Amino acid sequence: MSSAVLYKLIKKDGRARRGEIKTPHGTIQTPVFMPVGTAGAVKAMKPEDVKKMGAEIILGNTYHLYLRPGHELVREAGGLHKFMNWDRAILTDSGGFQVFSLGQLRKITEEGVEFRSHIDGSKHFISPEKSIEIQTALGSDIMMAFDECAPYPADRSYVEESMQMTARWLARCKEAWKDRENQALFGIMQGGMYKDLRRESAKMTVDMDLPGYAIGGLSVGEPKEIMIDVLDDCAELLPEDKPRYLMGVGTPDYLFEAVEHGIDMCDCVEPTRIARHGMATTSHGRLNIKNAKFERDFGPLDPECDCYTCRHYSRAYLRHMFKSGEIMSSMLLSEHNLHFLVKTMENIRKAIEEERFLEYKKEFYEKYGYEQTE
Amino acid sequence: MSSAVLYKLIKKDGRARRGEIKTPHGTIQTPVFMPVGTAGAVKAMKPEDVKKMGAEIILGNTYHLYLRPGHELVREAGGLHKFMNWDRAILTDSGGFQVFSLGQLRKITEEGVEFRSHIDGSKHFISPEKSIEIQTALGSDIMMAFDECAPYPADRSYVEESMQMTARWLARCKEAWKDRENQALFGIMQGGMYKDLRRESAKMTVDMDLPGYAIGGLSVGEPKEIMIDVLDDCAELLPEDKPRYLMGVGTPDYLFEAVEHGIDMCDCVEPTRIARHGMATTSHGRLNIKNAKFERDFGPLDPECDCYTCRHYSRAYLRHMFKSGEIMSSMLLSEHNLHFLVKTMENIRKAIEEERFLEYKKEFYEKYGYEQTE
Repeated sequence: MSSAVLYKLIKKDGRARRGEIKTPHGTIQTPVFMPVGTAGAVKAMKPEDVKKMGAEIILGNTYHLYLRPGHELVREAGGLHKFMNWDRAILTDSGGFQVFSLGQLRKITEEGVEFRSHIDGSKHFISPEKSIEIQTALGSDIMMAFDECAPYPADRSYVEESMQMTARWLARCKEAWKDRENQALFGIMQGGMYKDLRRESAKMTVDMDLPGYAIGGLSVGEPKEIMIDVLDDCAELLPEDKPRYLMGVGTPDYLFEAVEHGIDMCDCVEPTRIARHGMATTSHGRLNIKNAKFERDFGPLDPECDCYTCRHYSRAYLRHMFKSGEIMSSMLLSEHNLHFLVKTMENIRKAIEEERFLEYKKEFYEKYGYEQTE
Repeated sequence: MSSAVLYKLIKKDGRARRGEIKTPHGTIQTPVFMPVGTAGAVKAMKPEDVKKMGAEIILGNTYHLYLRPGHELVREAGGLHKFMNWDRAILTDSGGFQVFSLGQLRKITEEGVEFRSHIDGSKHFISPEKSIEIQTALGSDIMMAFDECAPYPADRSYVEESMQMTARWLARCKEAWKDRENQALFGIMQGGMYKDLRRESAKMTVDMDLPGYAIGGLSVGEPKEIMIDVLDDCAELLPEDKPRYLMGVGTPDYLFEAVEHGIDMCDCVEPTRIARHGMATTSHGRLNIKNAKFERDFGPLDPECDCYTCRHYSRAYLRHMFKSGEIMSSMLLSEHNLHFLVKTMENIRKAIEEERFLEYKKEFYEKYGYEQTE
């Protein structure tokens, strides 16, 4: 059993879990939101500023880094940590999700996936073994198994076959991984919105006895109620003594739902992506900085936020930066949006410790303007 | 006489001057290179990082800030310093240079310049009085007089008329400025490449008895030898006890030439502009990070540089960032390029103190790959 990643459950509040994950690059307090650094950079952010806001782990994308600059180059550079100047933990996805998103450009077989690069159209092939090879070269602390993420909606038969193949691919990933000491492998359960398939997938995944497990194939376009209903089942199928990661989830409400159902880790590109489009997430809901009403608004983006952006700049300035096409706009909004989610998770952890998670959720939702799900 | 800006000459080495300029927002060590923050931000740089590299004054563009977000908005925000989160000195240009660059879009009369906005085509009028009004609202420490910068090449008769009008405009600027205590007004001498016109212009400008003087209309496309020849004459025409500012100059060789001829202040958008195009200025000359030879170059941009970028990132990483279209590329290259010029000026100041300016210039040129001008 690999010692690269060790989970410790500290406290429970309902199903919400307060814990920590030990990695070769530091200990992560959970539940945690992981900023995404797709191509070897959290977009528009210096690593020091990502650290300053309290982020303890970021995510790198295997698909992007494999195509550019290439995993062998990253290996030669001394690994992804060194290459991108990030000395805390890194989780890499398997490349599967991005490859499947290519649609017409890819072909799936039992062996793996053949696809054409979105950059130059060149032909490539990623198998479970290849994905592990790439992630090994990148040197991430947590590697993800190569899975197929079925689309939504999808026929039961397609989802079932896909889920079975994902299980066979997981066995091949584990074999390729060889239980190494400095990198952990997480398995991913699939099964779409079919609860019995989810159960079967969870069992096959957990049977592989890995350092951690993820739930894939949720938040792929299904209505929120369905997501929560399936999640409600899924999380309980995963062992208590291992970290549980809900992939691709990052709006505040989804974070709360995830944690409420026993999830420890989340990630999403949303905070930095919407930042580049002039959108901010605040305590009082989402805000579009392009809005004319902010033209002479000299208050901060979020009066309750203590991030760099909110401490130093006004909405009027941020709007001006966005409208002038200044890079500064992406820099400042990305920093705020990431800070907001990282701090929200910090507050969630505190709430769990004090056994008032649901209370905090209610407060947050009311202020944010979300409808309560209960 | 305004006390907003006071110059102190500390030491001379040949004609090179080591001094300092006291402003309401701190003292500036001269000779100084001023990073440009066109629209209220040094592009792709946080102000804290601009400060960290040692910059003591930046430049703001009146034309841009007048059109967007508007000088009245900046005034309401508490002035440009507060609006853009920069608590050190700011110099604003007069808007003249940008307006004249609009070509077909502007019409010059004795009264001022009518022009159409490059943003939305709306009609505007800037006169000497209006320029001072805008700069007053911006709250810069140093305001520049509204002048006409004649193009190169230009007929003697055009340059002469233009220079005479600039002198009349300067009188109007001074009248509008009213010798206020917290903002200094610098006059600008013109005269193109005609030395006798330069002399006449210098006399008329200095006769206005202002806190500082600038040389405009150089580095506008003329050959370097002509620039240096005219500069050689110009600087000496300005009083010893006031700061001398050579406008729009920013490549390393032009900095050295400026200082050698007795200039105290320079500015240029070049370092940040070329950064966004993947170009870096280093001790060993200019470097194009897109170049294939840097693909697996894991050394720093400039081995002799101690900037943030050179301390933490490799050429391979910077090339990858640029090729991936990451904002990080502009951030890191801008920081290096500005740092390089600011530090070069620091070294120049030290060399003057130690009376080895020409020696340092020779060393720098040899390493950089410049041909010596002597």
